[in-house]
Amino acid sequence: MIIIMKDNASKQDISAVEKRLSEFGFQTHPIFGEKKTVIGAIGDKRQISMNEILLMSGVENVVPIMRPYKLASKELKQEKSVIDVGHGVTIGGKKLAVFAGPCAIESREHFLKMARLVKEAGANILRGGAFKPRTSPYAFGGLEDEGLKIMREAADELSMPACTEVMDTRDVELVAKYADIIQIGARNMQNFKLLREVGKINKPVFLKRGLASTIEEWLMAAEYIMSEGNDNVILCERGIRTYETSTRNTFDVSAIPVTQELTHLPIIGDPSHAAGNYKYVPAIAKAAIAAGADGLMIEVHDCPECAASDGPQSLKPDKFAALMQELGKIAEVIGKEI
Amino acid sequence: MIIIMKDNASKQDISAVEKRLSEFGFQTHPIFGEKKTVIGAIGDKRQISMNEILLMSGVENVVPIMRPYKLASKELKQEKSVIDVGHGVTIGGKKLAVFAGPCAIESREHFLKMARLVKEAGANILRGGAFKPRTSPYAFGGLEDEGLKIMREAADELSMPACTEVMDTRDVELVAKYADIIQIGARNMQNFKLLREVGKINKPVFLKRGLASTIEEWLMAAEYIMSEGNDNVILCERGIRTYETSTRNTFDVSAIPVTQELTHLPIIGDPSHAAGNYKYVPAIAKAAIAAGADGLMIEVHDCPECAASDGPQSLKPDKFAALMQELGKIAEVIGKEI
Amino acid sequence: MIIIMKDNASKQDISAVEKRLSEFGFQTHPIFGEKKTVIGAIGDKRQISMNEILLMSGVENVVPIMRPYKLASKELKQEKSVIDVGHGVTIGGKKLAVFAGPCAIESREHFLKMARLVKEAGANILRGGAFKPRTSPYAFGGLEDEGLKIMREAADELSMPACTEVMDTRDVELVAKYADIIQIGARNMQNFKLLREVGKINKPVFLKRGLASTIEEWLMAAEYIMSEGNDNVILCERGIRTYETSTRNTFDVSAIPVTQELTHLPIIGDPSHAAGNYKYVPAIAKAAIAAGADGLMIEVHDCPECAASDGPQSLKPDKFAALMQELGKIAEVIGKEI
Amino acid sequence: MIIIMKDNASKQDISAVEKRLSEFGFQTHPIFGEKKTVIGAIGDKRQISMNEILLMSGVENVVPIMRPYKLASKELKQEKSVIDVGHGVTIGGKKLAVFAGPCAIESREHFLKMARLVKEAGANILRGGAFKPRTSPYAFGGLEDEGLKIMREAADELSMPACTEVMDTRDVELVAKYADIIQIGARNMQNFKLLREVGKINKPVFLKRGLASTIEEWLMAAEYIMSEGNDNVILCERGIRTYETSTRNTFDVSAIPVTQELTHLPIIGDPSHAAGNYKYVPAIAKAAIAAGADGLMIEVHDCPECAASDGPQSLKPDKFAALMQELGKIAEVIGKEI
Repeated sequence: MIIIMKDNASKQDISAVEKRLSEFGFQTHPIFGEKKTVIGAIGDKRQISMNEILLMSGVENVVPIMRPYKLASKELKQEKSVIDVGHGVTIGGKKLAVFAGPCAIESREHFLKMARLVKEAGANILRGGAFKPRTSPYAFGGLEDEGLKIMREAADELSMPACTEVMDTRDVELVAKYADIIQIGARNMQNFKLLREVGKINKPVFLKRGLASTIEEWLMAAEYIMSEGNDNVILCERGIRTYETSTRNTFDVSAIPVTQELTHLPIIGDPSHAAGNYKYVPAIAKAAIAAGADGLMIEVHDCPECAASDGPQSLKPDKFAALMQELGKIAEVIGKEI
Repeated sequence: MIIIMKDNASKQDISAVEKRLSEFGFQTHPIFGEKKTVIGAIGDKRQISMNEILLMSGVENVVPIMRPYKLASKELKQEKSVIDVGHGVTIGGKKLAVFAGPCAIESREHFLKMARLVKEAGANILRGGAFKPRTSPYAFGGLEDEGLKIMREAADELSMPACTEVMDTRDVELVAKYADIIQIGARNMQNFKLLREVGKINKPVFLKRGLASTIEEWLMAAEYIMSEGNDNVILCERGIRTYETSTRNTFDVSAIPVTQELTHLPIIGDPSHAAGNYKYVPAIAKAAIAAGADGLMIEVHDCPECAASDGPQSLKPDKFAALMQELGKIAEVIGKEI
Repeated sequence: MIIIMKDNASKQDISAVEKRLSEFGFQTHPIFGEKKTVIGAIGDKRQISMNEILLMSGVENVVPIMRPYKLASKELKQEKSVIDVGHGVTIGGKKLAVFAGPCAIESREHFLKMARLVKEAGANILRGGAFKPRTSPYAFGGLEDEGLKIMREAADELSMPACTEVMDTRDVELVAKYADIIQIGARNMQNFKLLREVGKINKPVFLKRGLASTIEEWLMAAEYIMSEGNDNVILCERGIRTYETSTRNTFDVSAIPVTQELTHLPIIGDPSHAAGNYKYVPAIAKAAIAAGADGLMIEVHDCPECAASDGPQSLKPDKFAALMQELGKIAEVIGKEI
Repeated sequence: MIIIMKDNASKQDISAVEKRLSEFGFQTHPIFGEKKTVIGAIGDKRQISMNEILLMSGVENVVPIMRPYKLASKELKQEKSVIDVGHGVTIGGKKLAVFAGPCAIESREHFLKMARLVKEAGANILRGGAFKPRTSPYAFGGLEDEGLKIMREAADELSMPACTEVMDTRDVELVAKYADIIQIGARNMQNFKLLREVGKINKPVFLKRGLASTIEEWLMAAEYIMSEGNDNVILCERGIRTYETSTRNTFDVSAIPVTQELTHLPIIGDPSHAAGNYKYVPAIAKAAIAAGADGLMIEVHDCPECAASDGPQSLKPDKFAALMQELGKIAEVIGKEI
């Protein structure tokens, strides 16, 4: 780390900082300018004692040199992670991962119907909510256990991996029993206890970016999971909160190249939750693939106006199928396939 | 709700919308303009079927008339809620609530020392973290059970109520056993399972505003807790995420008059987490009281540079005591007391 | 507009609102619910008297029905505007517009060299700043008049239209003399006097979205220009300000489909200013085209480390040429050409 | 500045960076860590060549040590600036500055009436818009020259300084002829040509913070004005753009202590434009004073529902007078007076 001293810092201040740093095992290298003194401190501690140093007399600012995540970083692992999610599907390689299905699992018949339709259109992973985070306590919260069983049945019938959300540490074991991929939703991206729990299981984790999380916080959430031994983390950009109200969230398309610069983990785009409106889903989906995403998560419903949740952002099956055709062509142009 | 039809909506579109609304028990009142038709729909459903109507042919927009929360609203209860938090302390009345203490409970000796100091300076509620949400998995996570016991001992010795955070549904029972007030942290404001759990217990809940939550979402989180039967919810404004980086968060001082317009629940200001820097804490604390807050939560530490967490935003005991003097005078001017 | 009355609004309140609305020429249609009364008001005024009504006794809220812009809206003109910018180039049709060149015009030799290189790579419009808005008063502010002449010379030599920014009402005539397209920069999007001035001239206007402007405000800025008689407005999405710091701005890719839903004006993406870092420019450029943009503005410099401004976001000519190849393929897939 | 090299930077990279820095007159001090090399560079250049260094081979990041503004900084001038605005009024001292009046100057009679009322209630500076920035080209844009004359007449009659906005470089001379204080509005905070023009005149400048400007950008805008020789800059916090919609902007109360830490310039709070709703104005006004602001700008109108602009945020004269009473008491508590 680098310590920038105030203009009026005394010699005592400077030597006190150096002394404290050396107690922590850092080697210090002061640089004396005309006005300011700067101290370079070399050591391998991460995030330790920065606050302590910041509060010492005469210190103006402390600048970290190293990123706070380790296991998720490219410093540790250069090559892209390719994650096996079962049924022969991998995420992070040449073939794009397309998660599709209704927002919520509403009934056995409906989910099976949707699952068949999305598979036919080219999706390779099923999505569907059994536990639904809802802003209102009075809204439909999902079929829970029953929903999980329906999802499993459809996944087995179609031989596709299935992804569903877990919201509570008490449900991790249950969800892991039925799902191939465990989703951590945007609202739980910093539910640290839940992150630790899914870090202890042996299933890939689909980690949505928080509603207003920085990319660094998002990678720190991945680090939580990985620090418990589960390296199979898949990132999902689903839009961030901004002042703009014409879409529900603002899809941060730059997060795709930025995360690919910083981490070896694969990244999926979710245009449905970003847009909040089916009309904008195809444009955002195409943008995500053109920007280099490893896949997409798209909500599909045959009757959006009767959907138990998130109808306005769901594509009808025929529109989804048409979009898949377009996506296939864009994928090809950039050296991927669908 | 009000349904705004597109310019080119057909008669069939309009009558289909009216038909669907009447099936839901709404009375409809179409208004035919030169270009646009608007349909007023009167009924007592909240948030139901808005999406369905929005997706019908010819519909441009649907505007709700009523707010989505009920129990938390002033429509239901006009008079301000005054919440008894034990040991003779109430929140929401003339006397301000001042929560003070270190960010984390670090040891028995230290916490007792801090508790005595803040009481002496005029604080009437203890704060201290036993379970700490930390951005990094490698940072100090709190003393957990042991911390809870230390907090209880100090609270009993000083006859003050104590407030601490719960992060996991599995810990609600344990925390409720030791704490007088259960805190839901900013990162868990939309951890809906946790909200439901604390709604089922018989202790006041201190509900921090989410990192980037709207006031409406915050009141919906309160509604979650209240919908389970626990009406004793205390709101806490702790700064919101914006583009400005000179403070860790932007303290939304307007949230104080706005919530007082919308809800009967009391509101506390937390200048420490908003500022992220002790230098700005006094100014924000005074602002919050002048704006009408029902109290404050302030982090106090005798050695900020050795604090286990959040040192840079902690006030030293003497600065806290001086601030309490100033706050007392401002409180008096606006008809409150400390 | 629709007027939502408070729960406790009196009959007098309601009839006073109706009376005032009818004085403004509105027809009123009250709808009496169990709790709330809502008044539909039909008339052709835009934005007039909403505030007046909002402040009347018993009024809770006023909801507009119509959008505040007219000339820029699709209500007025359904078909996409195709804007002739000279030298046989049009914007808004099948062929993509690619504006390229250095951030600032630095010298005659350098600009001519860059202009030839970008033309060779496939760009069809030149860009280069003669008047540069700089955050610091001590930074290079552009070659001004001399820069304009250099730009004109290059444009004539290569038979390409040229686009450059105007920052001051006093310079509009001068800039219009040399440029084919007049740029209004992000910082001047709500410089209303400047908007009116460029509305009076006979040259296409390239209107960048403000640093933190909503899409509605942006279209209102276009409306300013159009209200003076100049219909040739080209929108440019260049990233918006958010809390995320890994890129200089967040490229709002959704703005592409959203503006295409609301307005007939063409839209260009500027990945350079959004990213602030050349490494992310290709991904964002490809995303913008895949999302349906009518073109791109890209900064190109042969020596980014010696650039007079914005070096870090400039592509080197060979990288720009390679990107153009990729863009051509994506354009083809979505029915456009480069 | 400090240069952080990439993990894999070569010796050649490092010496090339050192060579380039020394060409710019910097002394360099490399620090070799196990993984990373960091180079401290000491020199007195501000913001020069950072980009160049950033783009050199092997460079990961460049961290500035000094702030980009000089004249506005406390490094240059420790003591608070007290600005004489005429008629015996100063801003930045013990006595608070209270700017009050209608949003727009609507007529001679009305403005004189308002001016007398606000003076009677204790305001010491008049405000009123003659040139109004309006989002819509169809809205009232101000009385312009006639408005300026009305303002001057009222100011002379009441012997109060008057503040009004200038929006166009062409109007600076005219506005300076009539006004005692020249306002730069939020939308023009980065209209650099206008900043330079008002830097050349001999009147205090009231500089509103931009809609979504950082504090650093705001101080850089002050630096623009000061770099032309006009040191009499008064800052005004008027709310920033965030995702929260319950107020028009979010009043950044922390900006008060933060600017007082960074600059010697006085700071005024504008609760009217921040709130956008008169109901929240008193709470925010009291908060600003309690936080240490040097004064307030408040919109007052005797008939908000007939105001030509911004009616919903205007206080009626009796409410303004009552607020002034409360403000006086808070001022006293914190060692100021009204």
